[in-house]
Amino acid sequence: MTGNPADRAGAILEIDLAGIAANWRLLERRSRPAECAAVVKADAYGLGAARVAPVLAAAGCRRFFVATIEEGIALRRVLPHPAEIAVFHGPWPGCAEEFGEFRLVPVLNDPGQIAVWRCAVARYGEGPAMLHLDTGMARLGLTTAEFDGLADELSRPGSIRWRALISHLACSDEPEHLLNEVQHKRFAAARRRLPDLPASLAASSGIFLGSNFHLDFVRPGAALYGVNPQPGHPNPMKQIVTLKGRILQIREVDRGQSVGYGATHVMGSPGRLATVAVGYADGWLRSASQRTTGRIGGIQVPLLGRVSMDLVVFDVSGIDPSLARPGEFIELLGEAYGVDAAAADAGTIGYEVLTALGRRYHRIYRGPNGSQC
Amino acid sequence: MTGNPADRAGAILEIDLAGIAANWRLLERRSRPAECAAVVKADAYGLGAARVAPVLAAAGCRRFFVATIEEGIALRRVLPHPAEIAVFHGPWPGCAEEFGEFRLVPVLNDPGQIAVWRCAVARYGEGPAMLHLDTGMARLGLTTAEFDGLADELSRPGSIRWRALISHLACSDEPEHLLNEVQHKRFAAARRRLPDLPASLAASSGIFLGSNFHLDFVRPGAALYGVNPQPGHPNPMKQIVTLKGRILQIREVDRGQSVGYGATHVMGSPGRLATVAVGYADGWLRSASQRTTGRIGGIQVPLLGRVSMDLVVFDVSGIDPSLARPGEFIELLGEAYGVDAAAADAGTIGYEVLTALGRRYHRIYRGPNGSQC
Repeated sequence: MTGNPADRAGAILEIDLAGIAANWRLLERRSRPAECAAVVKADAYGLGAARVAPVLAAAGCRRFFVATIEEGIALRRVLPHPAEIAVFHGPWPGCAEEFGEFRLVPVLNDPGQIAVWRCAVARYGEGPAMLHLDTGMARLGLTTAEFDGLADELSRPGSIRWRALISHLACSDEPEHLLNEVQHKRFAAARRRLPDLPASLAASSGIFLGSNFHLDFVRPGAALYGVNPQPGHPNPMKQIVTLKGRILQIREVDRGQSVGYGATHVMGSPGRLATVAVGYADGWLRSASQRTTGRIGGIQVPLLGRVSMDLVVFDVSGIDPSLARPGEFIELLGEAYGVDAAAADAGTIGYEVLTALGRRYHRIYRGPNGSQC
Repeated sequence: MTGNPADRAGAILEIDLAGIAANWRLLERRSRPAECAAVVKADAYGLGAARVAPVLAAAGCRRFFVATIEEGIALRRVLPHPAEIAVFHGPWPGCAEEFGEFRLVPVLNDPGQIAVWRCAVARYGEGPAMLHLDTGMARLGLTTAEFDGLADELSRPGSIRWRALISHLACSDEPEHLLNEVQHKRFAAARRRLPDLPASLAASSGIFLGSNFHLDFVRPGAALYGVNPQPGHPNPMKQIVTLKGRILQIREVDRGQSVGYGATHVMGSPGRLATVAVGYADGWLRSASQRTTGRIGGIQVPLLGRVSMDLVVFDVSGIDPSLARPGEFIELLGEAYGVDAAAADAGTIGYEVLTALGRRYHRIYRGPNGSQC
């Protein structure tokens, strides 16, 4: 094929792999002496687990978490044993065998999954697993009652080789929330029943609740990718993502001209508009309509009207026409407007801005000193 | 690899290809004698253009629209010439050559794109194109002033082989909106300047504005995939998508138990919860938190608390425990709760529910009589 895909791309997503490694090292230092794992579920929060995980492994990470067995199978292809890959959703009948085949460590969330795993281990041999205790999310993990009934049995040497006891905080991004201490206490009580198991409670925000939440290992995800683990405070994490949308067309408009679907925006004065090749089908959430902004030549430009499926329109009336012209780019995400800012304008959280990032973007991965890799 | 991917999938997305063909035929009949094209941009609104487009071609569709040149190149692989593939975003310097190589028809949106295409045609030979006139969206397409300045020149026989004159309605889902007639009139005036060109104005909802909007061909997209083209009226389109999420865990909870991140939901009475393997990383929008519902055994169950990245929690207190158990599925989209209903609960439109559909779902395509294909 002729031509360069970047030249014909309507939008370019740059992902700073060196920045992800730097974020991991910052969290690793902050969590010592606890070990620092990495959560690369949901395709490393939309950024590409196959590219992200090897970089984290090179930085020193030994333990990785994914959500589903398919993600585990895909990750094992780029992350050879002995890197540990744990699968949050655990096994069910009919898929236990693949955990052994790909040396994946299931997280066992309820008595049924423990039984499935015992059965698989009896058939296929020794099986490492993590035990998940729910301490206040009511989502996945043994209830306190289930744990109390099983703890003695689980503490005896048996076929399951326990790799860890884990739980998950519901409100760790709100340090003052009472549930944090409640969950910590419940987890501490459970640990006394299984004192030999390495324990883990903290994800990204949990790391910043203090060292008593670090335990044996921490499991950051979002913070690796630039989400602020301490909302309301300066973000200690490096921004990882730069998104630039190409200007397809520049249009001079009169006062009174309506813009986009539903004619929800009407020009209050004459102006100049730039139509950009990014839309909600690219994960640029429709809830950002009339609210988000772009940047060109360091100047902020407002998005006008509704986000379309494949297009957005910015008001570039105040921009030098030699900058805002077809073929040039408007920055949608970057240092000046990170994932948390975009999320606030779309009424959601940085996590969703990341996982929504679309498949049509031309992706460029950058290593040390911005080198393409 | 051992095992069946469907058996280990956390969620299954079924796409009714025969239903898409039936929807196209309904729209085709309704639009006669106008020709009926099909819009398969954004990967056929998230459903898979490589599977959808050949089915539409077999049903009789001869003209397809995508947004970007990459989508056009991918579509040409499954849709041989002479099927026409038009690219809404048009060409820019550096990517015109690929239009010729893959026999793609660019939509030319501004004088710059017309110049780029003329230049490419001079180098590579005869070049078909469509001309896009903006009549009220202020998004893509020549302004009226630009068109007036160019129309005489464009009407003369020349190097560009014009395939169509098109425009796009901003408010076609609101039949009473004054802009519909305004756009129709502006487009009619332009057609008089280029009377030999086939003309197209209507997308899905535009088809239902009446036969005077049909012109030479119509371009439905959303309605093919089950979105109601007439909001507020009974939906004439077949639902295309069924989404089922697997129950990972069932949990008995006490009164006062908080559910999910931020502890935003607190149980008002004891109950039973089902945790399901779908989250916002799968495009199950976080804005549906506390608002959407699932269905199991024909009974509606409310989603409690916030949508997580990989999980949602439903209240299955009222469901027979033999139905709601780990390994079983809760239906999230289907006949009883289609894309428009899900969109209303998430504060958006059915289009975004479709294009957000995630990559982790195990996809099953169904043909005539529900056969897997």
